Amino acid sequence: MHIKDRYPTRMRQHIEPFVRPDPVVYGGADASNAGPLTAGQLASFEENGFLFLDNFLSEREVDGFLDDLEGYSRDRSVLDREETVTEQHTDVIKSVFAIHNLSPRFERLGRDERLLGMAQQLLGSDAYIHQSRINNKPAFRGTGFNWHSDFETWHSEDGMPYPRCVSFSIALDDNTEFNGPLMLIPKSHKVFVPYTGETPPQNWTQSLKSQTVGVPRAGQLKELAQRGGGIVAPKGRRGSLLIFESNTLHASSNNLSPFPRRNLFFVLNSVENKLVAPYCGNRPRPEYLATRRDAVPLHSGMPSERQPVRAQGSFLKEPAAAQVPRQ
Amino acid sequence: MHIKDRYPTRMRQHIEPFVRPDPVVYGGADASNAGPLTAGQLASFEENGFLFLDNFLSEREVDGFLDDLEGYSRDRSVLDREETVTEQHTDVIKSVFAIHNLSPRFERLGRDERLLGMAQQLLGSDAYIHQSRINNKPAFRGTGFNWHSDFETWHSEDGMPYPRCVSFSIALDDNTEFNGPLMLIPKSHKVFVPYTGETPPQNWTQSLKSQTVGVPRAGQLKELAQRGGGIVAPKGRRGSLLIFESNTLHASSNNLSPFPRRNLFFVLNSVENKLVAPYCGNRPRPEYLATRRDAVPLHSGMPSERQPVRAQGSFLKEPAAAQVPRQ
Repeated sequence: MHIKDRYPTRMRQHIEPFVRPDPVVYGGADASNAGPLTAGQLASFEENGFLFLDNFLSEREVDGFLDDLEGYSRDRSVLDREETVTEQHTDVIKSVFAIHNLSPRFERLGRDERLLGMAQQLLGSDAYIHQSRINNKPAFRGTGFNWHSDFETWHSEDGMPYPRCVSFSIALDDNTEFNGPLMLIPKSHKVFVPYTGETPPQNWTQSLKSQTVGVPRAGQLKELAQRGGGIVAPKGRRGSLLIFESNTLHASSNNLSPFPRRNLFFVLNSVENKLVAPYCGNRPRPEYLATRRDAVPLHSGMPSERQPVRAQGSFLKEPAAAQVPRQ
Repeated sequence: MHIKDRYPTRMRQHIEPFVRPDPVVYGGADASNAGPLTAGQLASFEENGFLFLDNFLSEREVDGFLDDLEGYSRDRSVLDREETVTEQHTDVIKSVFAIHNLSPRFERLGRDERLLGMAQQLLGSDAYIHQSRINNKPAFRGTGFNWHSDFETWHSEDGMPYPRCVSFSIALDDNTEFNGPLMLIPKSHKVFVPYTGETPPQNWTQSLKSQTVGVPRAGQLKELAQRGGGIVAPKGRRGSLLIFESNTLHASSNNLSPFPRRNLFFVLNSVENKLVAPYCGNRPRPEYLATRRDAVPLHSGMPSERQPVRAQGSFLKEPAAAQVPRQ
């Protein structure tokens, strides 16, 4: 048991949701001088818990990652990796974890100055890869996942002390309303919703298929959605980038479209927020789900020592206004 | 075994999809003189296999049906009916079948001149209720259903001879992209996709929860979606009406929104298309899934003998253009 756990969860007794006691943007008021995100974008992230940037990767870069995935699906040594999750009873890849150790292309992306610049603005420090993967949600049968906060899991099961961590999702296919895009509850990152009930040992073997432990109650979700103005599901072309805060509630539906939905997903954690022992008391999850040993900063220079990367290209336009359903 | 079954399906041997040998609109070229649907709407239904009409029921009428549903959920005698399907291990209603026998409000709706006029235009004859129900897809946990043609099931399991049958779905909640709205593949009604494999006895006890028998293969769905221009999911306010042809492929996703999705669903079959013995060779399904004994025409007069019901009110405006995803 940790002393003064600011985010108690997975307890037997019920704890009411509470306002998060820590900042959202750690880079400070003048962070917009230090990287590619504008003051408006930083304010929007602070307020809503996410940012959507269209046209982040070029068509050619996207095709490169799709070639990689195609290659993995024919490579027995990749299919047999513990880090590769396939659909039940098939060799159809669902996720390949820890691709930063597998793909030179991804390793380069992880050092992309635009990405690191944004992470440093948001985290106020250097960052390392907490988790990375390439996901495939196959046409017609790709399954979604229930509402949850990543930080709730990473805190309890991985020992991540604070929500000083951001997730990046890069679409490798157009996001449409039909292929199970990521849905978010705006502003939900400002509230921590403790889960009532202890964490089963090796919970991750179940939760990667279908999460139940950590999922907020329907009434809690409804209240947060009503406060936040509903649900949003950013749509955009392949190559678009969604950045979301580690505590933002998100979910996704099944893919019932005739096309796959593939994306790159990686999590950058502050080097000042490295993992400690899991707060739930269980043994740590595997390294490929939560980097512990190899928490190496992606950039050796601190933001103040670097040439600031300024706005360039269309990926820096303001995100579209949140879509609020008429309910 | 029937002689000359024009829609062979559920056989052990594979049969390729084929173009439907029967008409879509049976009312003939001058049907637009005989009812509320315009020539343009009839042509659109013929071409796409569905029509979407916003503002069909008033807010007040919708509230009435929601009151009924609310009442059912507190009425032990309704909950205990065989025709009432609840979520597993709960009393939360998923569907109440055969509501035309239960609800005076629905019984009146089933005699609505606008509805009957449209049915008669499309079917070219009087119609009776083949199936009716009120559906509830609860917030956060309502489940969807896989792609299928209703006619494929009704033909094989209920003995419906031809696709001369239309379904009406009236939204009791706004349809949004988040609450699992009905999705359709435009133009798919023109092709019949035989299913390979025999029908298990009492298949309906499984298929009402999750349909697998009768579901086209992924490659077939993809080809039909590409031919038809993608997938559409008509959106509209509560009270909107979706009419779709019995062979139009449709599906729906889970409801991951904080709000329920409730609707009225009923099927009007031509009196010249009454059920015979099930083509799959099994025993008939229960009467509440497929009217057999009580196939009473909803209107005693044939269209030619009636006062034509002409366009009135905003529900007759042209449906929005099909939404084609950018894939």
